[in-house]
Amino acid sequence: MQSLDSSTTPLTAEAFELTENGTIPPSTHKSHAKYEDGTSIDWLHEESAERARNHSMRLQHGVRGLLLPMMDAWRMWFIVIVTGIGIGIAGAWLDVLVKWLADLREGRCSYGFFYNQVACCSGIDPGDVCREWQTWSEVFRVRQIFLQTLLQAFVYIALALLFSGSAAVLVETYAPYAFHTGIPEIKAILGGYVFDAFLTPWTLLIKALGLALAVASGLSLGKEGPLVHVSCCMANILSQLFQQFRQNEAQKRRLLAAAAAAGVSVAFGSPLGGVLFGLEELDAFSSETDVMWRGFVASAIAAVSLQWVNPFGTAKLVLFQVTTNVADTWRAFELIPWLTLGVIGGVLGSFLIKLNVEVAIYRRNSILAQFPVLEVVAVSAITAAASYLIVFARVQSSELVANLFQECDPNKGDYHGLCNPSAIWENVFLLILTAALKVALTAWTFGMMIPAGIFLPTIAIGACLGRAMGILTQSLHRSNPTAWIFLSCPPDPTVPCISPGFYAVIGASAMLGGVTRMTISLVVILFELTGALSHVLPIMVCVMTAKWVGDALGTEGIYSTWIAMRQYPWLPPVHYKDKGETAAQIMKPRRKLIVIEDEGCSIPDLKSLVDEYNFNGFPVIRNEELLGYITRDKLTEIIGAFPPDENDTRKCSFSASNGSTSYLTSDNDNTIDCSGSLDETLIHLRKDVPQEVVVNMFQKFNLRHILFTHSGELTGMATKSDIVSLLTSHFPHTAALSKNASKSRQSSFTTSP
Amino acid sequence: MQSLDSSTTPLTAEAFELTENGTIPPSTHKSHAKYEDGTSIDWLHEESAERARNHSMRLQHGVRGLLLPMMDAWRMWFIVIVTGIGIGIAGAWLDVLVKWLADLREGRCSYGFFYNQVACCSGIDPGDVCREWQTWSEVFRVRQIFLQTLLQAFVYIALALLFSGSAAVLVETYAPYAFHTGIPEIKAILGGYVFDAFLTPWTLLIKALGLALAVASGLSLGKEGPLVHVSCCMANILSQLFQQFRQNEAQKRRLLAAAAAAGVSVAFGSPLGGVLFGLEELDAFSSETDVMWRGFVASAIAAVSLQWVNPFGTAKLVLFQVTTNVADTWRAFELIPWLTLGVIGGVLGSFLIKLNVEVAIYRRNSILAQFPVLEVVAVSAITAAASYLIVFARVQSSELVANLFQECDPNKGDYHGLCNPSAIWENVFLLILTAALKVALTAWTFGMMIPAGIFLPTIAIGACLGRAMGILTQSLHRSNPTAWIFLSCPPDPTVPCISPGFYAVIGASAMLGGVTRMTISLVVILFELTGALSHVLPIMVCVMTAKWVGDALGTEGIYSTWIAMRQYPWLPPVHYKDKGETAAQIMKPRRKLIVIEDEGCSIPDLKSLVDEYNFNGFPVIRNEELLGYITRDKLTEIIGAFPPDENDTRKCSFSASNGSTSYLTSDNDNTIDCSGSLDETLIHLRKDVPQEVVVNMFQKFNLRHILFTHSGELTGMATKSDIVSLLTSHFPHTAALSKNASKSRQSSFTTSP
Repeated sequence: MQSLDSSTTPLTAEAFELTENGTIPPSTHKSHAKYEDGTSIDWLHEESAERARNHSMRLQHGVRGLLLPMMDAWRMWFIVIVTGIGIGIAGAWLDVLVKWLADLREGRCSYGFFYNQVACCSGIDPGDVCREWQTWSEVFRVRQIFLQTLLQAFVYIALALLFSGSAAVLVETYAPYAFHTGIPEIKAILGGYVFDAFLTPWTLLIKALGLALAVASGLSLGKEGPLVHVSCCMANILSQLFQQFRQNEAQKRRLLAAAAAAGVSVAFGSPLGGVLFGLEELDAFSSETDVMWRGFVASAIAAVSLQWVNPFGTAKLVLFQVTTNVADTWRAFELIPWLTLGVIGGVLGSFLIKLNVEVAIYRRNSILAQFPVLEVVAVSAITAAASYLIVFARVQSSELVANLFQECDPNKGDYHGLCNPSAIWENVFLLILTAALKVALTAWTFGMMIPAGIFLPTIAIGACLGRAMGILTQSLHRSNPTAWIFLSCPPDPTVPCISPGFYAVIGASAMLGGVTRMTISLVVILFELTGALSHVLPIMVCVMTAKWVGDALGTEGIYSTWIAMRQYPWLPPVHYKDKGETAAQIMKPRRKLIVIEDEGCSIPDLKSLVDEYNFNGFPVIRNEELLGYITRDKLTEIIGAFPPDENDTRKCSFSASNGSTSYLTSDNDNTIDCSGSLDETLIHLRKDVPQEVVVNMFQKFNLRHILFTHSGELTGMATKSDIVSLLTSHFPHTAALSKNASKSRQSSFTTSP
Repeated sequence: MQSLDSSTTPLTAEAFELTENGTIPPSTHKSHAKYEDGTSIDWLHEESAERARNHSMRLQHGVRGLLLPMMDAWRMWFIVIVTGIGIGIAGAWLDVLVKWLADLREGRCSYGFFYNQVACCSGIDPGDVCREWQTWSEVFRVRQIFLQTLLQAFVYIALALLFSGSAAVLVETYAPYAFHTGIPEIKAILGGYVFDAFLTPWTLLIKALGLALAVASGLSLGKEGPLVHVSCCMANILSQLFQQFRQNEAQKRRLLAAAAAAGVSVAFGSPLGGVLFGLEELDAFSSETDVMWRGFVASAIAAVSLQWVNPFGTAKLVLFQVTTNVADTWRAFELIPWLTLGVIGGVLGSFLIKLNVEVAIYRRNSILAQFPVLEVVAVSAITAAASYLIVFARVQSSELVANLFQECDPNKGDYHGLCNPSAIWENVFLLILTAALKVALTAWTFGMMIPAGIFLPTIAIGACLGRAMGILTQSLHRSNPTAWIFLSCPPDPTVPCISPGFYAVIGASAMLGGVTRMTISLVVILFELTGALSHVLPIMVCVMTAKWVGDALGTEGIYSTWIAMRQYPWLPPVHYKDKGETAAQIMKPRRKLIVIEDEGCSIPDLKSLVDEYNFNGFPVIRNEELLGYITRDKLTEIIGAFPPDENDTRKCSFSASNGSTSYLTSDNDNTIDCSGSLDETLIHLRKDVPQEVVVNMFQKFNLRHILFTHSGELTGMATKSDIVSLLTSHFPHTAALSKNASKSRQSSFTTSP
């Protein structure tokens, strides 16, 4: 995908000079051309560039030879640590900003506009009424109750529209890639997809700002996924400071993996969860202990920074502390409601994914596609209006979740009558209504032109349903304390046995399991989030059930679904099983391949080849015998190294003996020695290898292509995109949104040889 | 390594019949010969056998085609679940047994010999003195104080000798592989090493029984590693029930990985820790989500079973509950003592490993090797005598750790004066003395002829040092409450600021980090073990420090060290970096390889080849051009399929066109078509590929060999053992104990071609 005009090829003046006498110095990493957006990186190639760089560093004499590798490591740790600190602080200030914006929808602080409600009232004694915080009706001195309500509702909705509208305008105008959660893209990027426009400073700024506005507007979205995106942007920007990452996409991706872990760590206050998320969901560490280790460090530092800024004034990482007033145990009969919640989570999660897909496809193909800001404002209006009517939906999702996770405690006051034993059915109805509303709103919101995460809404839906189940079970126990099923409860009916707050946690786990299909990382995040260590087992069982049910219903997790819809070249880490097919069925056979014949092409021939096809590279053969593979970059380099001359008839030889150490030395006037430009790490298999092995090979090595030979002769070739289409063939909406993702580039990875 | 006498080759009668008319049916999984102990399995081969089996199942008509795969899955889940339940119950009863045996050393229950002290005294009111439990001096009515002490000490030491001696005799007589922790072997087995003698029913029984005796004898050892071994034995025995695992070593290993996770889960009451241990330390899941998932399920079920049996009567999984009487926060200045503990952990951990290695090598090469039982008894006597003198060492390590993790609480009583503020220096001295004693004893004990884990002693050492550090910091704070460094403490000096119990946890983390070099799994285990969720960050930082310091001191973790000493063919999951070397430097060149020439060998030729060399397989070439690779098994199968006849001059042809679908059909009288016996998944590279890529390939695919070709011609071959010796070359004591591990087999994997 290099620019084809040789004059713009970034070769140094030195290189041009040397061409005069026919030799060119060995390829250095400086001349390594960057990939264009939309392509996939060649991991083996990047690794070998990194190896060459390390090697040349170690060859330096004296102190330099010792210092340079150390500097190298320190630069890497610098980025990891600064990203950790940065995202920790950013996450904390985002919370502060959101809290202030959200409170602004209800009123203002009389003595300082920039205080939120808690800060405004922090000076008064407990028990006193806080007069410093004024609702808007107080500010405008509206006395009549009806007008008060009307004014409050009006400001509440108007500000929601203002916030969400400005978020959408910001995103649409300045950084269109800042919309959505960002996790599907990050998964693809970590897998080798090149998408630099996704990680620019502008995207960082707009995503962070837009996220604060979007969350404060009360739309049904969370900040978790976008924070991961913000963290990756930070690491990407920092990585541009140093040549070692600027010029090596594989090394940069290792940093991004650590940054993503730090992002999750801050989003949930869950440092271990971050590492595991990177491991399980992003598949980012590919069992390389040192990369996992970086993620671990970044996560820990991010969490420490968050705790240091201490946005919630609690000096704790646990966001939604679960306080059980019953003993830290649970009883076997409780598995019945919990497993039911697991099944509900699986079913509802699948439904939410399907609904979200339908909405996304409808949005893409209808008139909505032309008015993204209007759509956001409209949905925001509906959300605000509907939420204002239902008491549980009115507050921020995070506040709702915190309250639902809280146990009823007579000393603490009752959250909207949730603990009132005489209003069981009302509460259950309201909770289910809230959940249903949030399902519909979330399915629509996730994918609009604003930054939006799916975690928090999912938790909120699950917590509502779980709490409802908890209230029902509790009332069942209260009315039949002596039933045989409750025998394991304490005999004294005044001693609580069922803890509805914990049912909300279980519900949230189940729902998250159904939507994301994560397992271990989810459990860790949940129990770091809630501190419910003694209840790890039910959470595990519940997440398992939800995942099984969801998988049985045939949908993938929400992130995989979006990746498939956008057709990113990402290989899911599933264990693909073929039905006896061999590589021959997926490879492009020899006759369909464009190859370079050894000593058969002149420089103008190569140029026309590069001009005509936009493949990532070409196999090089000599009488059908495979010599190697040359990437487009190297070809462009060769072409650019010689002055354009249509009559240059010297043929390029790739089989000269001096091989990989020196590059482009012409032995005589008839051939140009290009043997050094061949890829040094070429993997070739036989075409009767089982498909499973080929897929596995692509997955484990993140390959861009495999060549197939038989007794040395080239028989075919398979590329990453062949494998991706093989693995996503079962999904009905594959590529439904792909052009949207990268309009101009999309062709580049589907038309590889 | 097949028996070379063709008459014993396990070919079915059917196969023999068909040979008569010159054809043999396609190779079925039934005829797949088992590997012998000491070899490595061929993962690609096993995978392809599994693929063939799945394929043939799916081809079944009607209900069978649907039911068989389902049965398959159910068998797998059956083993996972039963192993989980089994190890949970076994772990629980082991605890009960150990508690009883250990209490027996102090006294007996007057009304029932088989009650332990707690059970014996459970009937009395709190506050009453328990008269039902009689010390031995009470039993024998010894009244004089001096004689009482003498009798108690005598029984204490005598029973210790009896327990440890019988454990050693049991191990030496019935199951020599039941000694040690078992984790190094399990790591090797999961990586493909074949060591069936290690997982027999006898080993299971002796390891469990011997473990109970060894732990009760008060030797400086833990039950954690051996429990993992026991769990793997269970899964292995269960897997023998079903043909699908009996005949596929790769599938069996996937089960063993889940079982190992369940073992850790039970050992520490840490279901998530189990999964992560499998992931990080055993490298068992190789980023296959479904295998990790099995580990997750097995862990969860094992933990539930343990909780159900409820050995500690607390219905909690948290073994060493940390109860902090200070608020759930920590202060920045505390990082100074904690980081110091991290450094101490790293240094002392490395020292412990080195000491252990020296002892192991000394034991191997001295007269000690001949008297393993005597050694155990002697060390047991020293341990018992020394422990009886030091108050903290006298109790079971687990009890010591539990007490050290406990905060001082005036209502709960004082554990051996640990909370006495006037005995600071005595306590610190005693704690450091205990730690030093335990370092020496552990270094000697770990490797003797008894089941022994290293986790608990390491925790105990770390907890002693940590508690000492905590006491010192606390006294420093108490004497200078207004110093600037303590400004973040509550101003009221009566409010506790430093929590020495938590310092013990930090010390344990640091020490574990230094000894095992685990990171994430260690943190998870520790906080599942202690419930100290709010202190995850300091634990993380401390483990990180200990690992860095330890790695800088140049020793590997204790398990890797033992693997290297025993020279198991195990590839550590490190990111190997070459210094510019290519595959050419590690491969055996063509001229050193024993190859089979296509149409150049008759059956008697093949037989003599198999007789002469014990390689795992041979490359097949035709005029130097690589045709494929044939395993020893397949060769033996071919030889066995034809009646022994010295004058059979028919040549084996491997290049016939009908390829892999049919096996051994003779086209005419002059050649035998063996082309179906060639390995279908052959990976070949060019010899100028960087070493790093080759090592990576071996690690990720668990290969047994890679062939190198150039333009189709065979240029060399590298085997797993070449890679293992490359990766362990830096370790000074490589293979120091290897003959001990598998005396007769050891040559088989070091002499592969």
